[in-house]
Formats: sequence, structure tokens, C-alpha cells
Amino acid sequence: MAEQKATNITWHDADITAANREELLKQKGAVLWLTGLSGSGKSTLAHEVESRLYQRKCLTYVLDGDNIRHGLNKNLGFSPEDREENIRRIGEVARLFADAGILVMTAFISPYIKDRDQARSLLPEGRFIEIYCACSLDKCEERDPKGLYQKARSGEIKEFTGISAPYEAPQNPELVIQTDTLTLHESADEIIRFLEEKGLVPASGNE
Amino acid sequence: MAEQKATNITWHDADITAANREELLKQKGAVLWLTGLSGSGKSTLAHEVESRLYQRKCLTYVLDGDNIRHGLNKNLGFSPEDREENIRRIGEVARLFADAGILVMTAFISPYIKDRDQARSLLPEGRFIEIYCACSLDKCEERDPKGLYQKARSGEIKEFTGISAPYEAPQNPELVIQTDTLTLHESADEIIRFLEEKGLVPASGNE
Repeated sequence: MAEQKATNITWHDADITAANREELLKQKGAVLWLTGLSGSGKSTLAHEVESRLYQRKCLTYVLDGDNIRHGLNKNLGFSPEDREENIRRIGEVARLFADAGILVMTAFISPYIKDRDQARSLLPEGRFIEIYCACSLDKCEERDPKGLYQKARSGEIKEFTGISAPYEAPQNPELVIQTDTLTLHESADEIIRFLEEKGLVPASGNE
Repeated sequence: MAEQKATNITWHDADITAANREELLKQKGAVLWLTGLSGSGKSTLAHEVESRLYQRKCLTYVLDGDNIRHGLNKNLGFSPEDREENIRRIGEVARLFADAGILVMTAFISPYIKDRDQARSLLPEGRFIEIYCACSLDKCEERDPKGLYQKARSGEIKEFTGISAPYEAPQNPELVIQTDTLTLHESADEIIRFLEEKGLVPASGNE
């Protein structure tokens, strides 16, 4: 017993840290929090950035409705409390991914400043990057990739962000991406340039 | 607009997959689910495995009480429903980590077969490795690293696994580690050997 305990204590000194994992991956763990109206291109942009960073051997992960709403948050609905809990859990999971050394991107409308600030508070300084996907309601509604705006207008969906529920635009985000006028490639460029400038990913001379 | 939409569609073909991330990391994503009594050495063993695999440049992450109970699951107590939800969320988060290409280890008592089987059901075949940290109640109580058994015996803690609440040992786990007789190093050896045999981490001739 005594030997085992001593071994444990010795081991605790050698605990692998977030910094160790970042050294292994040659990148920094961080949360890229994309926010914006439905149809503003958050998920598409996140996956484009992921694809581009993969070419540089960076490890990323995208949390979006596809892997969260049917899994971790499948027991949450759309009441105010559930919406808040939805974003809270996503923030906590994003924090774990960043701690693991990963560049994790979240692609959720996340309409409330309070909820986004709560997610930000979980991360060390400089490791929470709020990215506002700025796209006019008109454009989003014109795109309407999932037909949700149509359902919101007809009243089939209640409390739809931008139509019958508020969207609180970020007041001081790290990045604003004009997804209504930039191409997808240009939008991703802006994010990748930011990550390079902040030293979160290695600079690449020729991509 | 038409151009943007087309770009999106093109992109979806190039979506980065779990297989891509595994190629980048030169390992397979999997969940190593450690289960056993309080004091059976789950968390210590998980961190030892992490430390050993780090030497081989493998990316791991440990989910345990420290980073889950104060974060994602801080709004859960110890009622039967909350215990079940606690394990459910951990299973879902572990699934996300495995999908990201990471060898994620969970170190929770997780006393119920049903809850562990539920977590298993989320993973592809061969990617959920149930590891039973087998240690007699007497040994665990003798160690009592957190003084919890003492509190359970005095009645200060109700429904404590092994004392006043059941522990359902795995019936067909991938691994049984005799943490009461093996050293920490030997215990980690068994897990690493298993991972090598299954091709989840590259074999290493000289560690």
C-alpha cells in the first residue's frame, strides 16, 4: 500500500497539462465562438476553416446542432431555461476541448450577450474568440437553407431569432465577418489570419 | 447568392471526418471507460496512462470529477435521476472527444451496468473500452484517499457506492485491472498493451 501511494504522489508531479498537449499539437487550444442569425453561415464557415486548417495539420473540432442537439443536449427543448442551459453546456464542453489543446469552433445562434459572456468567462484570457457572422436578416431569410424563416413567418415556429425573438449582436467581438458580402474563402481567410496573428496556429507562408 | 450556395455545397464534400483527424494524429479515437469503487485508482491510473502515452506523442484527455462536476455537471446533485444524467452527459462528451480523434479516458465510479451500456452504445464497435478497476472494498476503504468511506460509515454521506449503494461490476469488460495487487506502472502497461494490440495507438518497440 505505502509503495502504491508513493507512486501516486510521484505521478501527480508529472501530470500532463494543457501546455504539454499544445506542445504536442504545435498549436494553442482555444474556443472560436461563432454567433449570428440562422442562415448567416456559421456552420459552413466553421467547416471551411476546419478544412483549411487541416491542410496545415492543425487539429480542430466543430460543435454544432448536428452533434449536440441529438446528443448531449437532446433532453433540452426551446424554453428560455433550456436555451440558456443549451449554451451553458456547449460552453463547458468547448472549454474541455480547448483544455485538450484543440481549436474548437461552436456554431450556434447563441443570441444572448449574457450567455456568450458566460462561455467566455470559462476560458483563459485570449482563448475565447467571439466571431460575429454578420449577415442581414433579409439575406438570411432569402437563403433560408432549412426553410425555418418560412415556418417562423407562418407562425409554425414560435420565438424564432430575428423574427419573433431578439438577437443581441456582439458589442465587442474579436472578429466581425461580413458573411453576406464576403465569399466563403475570404471569410475563412479572416479567421485564419487572426489565429496566425495571435500565435494560436503556426504561420504558413504558402498555403 | 448563387455562387455562395454552390461554394457551400462543394465544401460539404470536403468535410473533415473522424478518419481524417485520426490520420493527422496517427492514432484512433476511442473511449477508455474506467469504472470501479471510490479509491480503486481510476483517476490515478488514467493520468498514468496519459503520461505514458504522451511520451509516444499520443493525444489523450481525462474526464474526471475535477473537470466535470465543477463544470458541465455542476447543476447535478446525487439523486438517482441526477446520477444517471451525470453519466449520460459524460458518455456524450466522451463520444465527441473520440470523434475528434482523441483517446479519452473517463474516471467515474459509474456503478450501473445500464448507464455504462448506454455510453457504450454511442460509440462505434471497438471504440468503447470498458476497464474495470478491480479493487476489494476493504482495500479501497483502507486507502480512503478523500476520507469518503469514513463519512459514509458515519452516515454523513448517504447512498455511498459499496457501503450503502450498489456497485454493479462489469460482466464482460474489455479489461479487468487488479489495481489492488498490481503496481501503477503494471496497471498502465496492461492498458497500453491492449491499445497496441487493437491498433488504437502505434506499437512502440522501446519505451
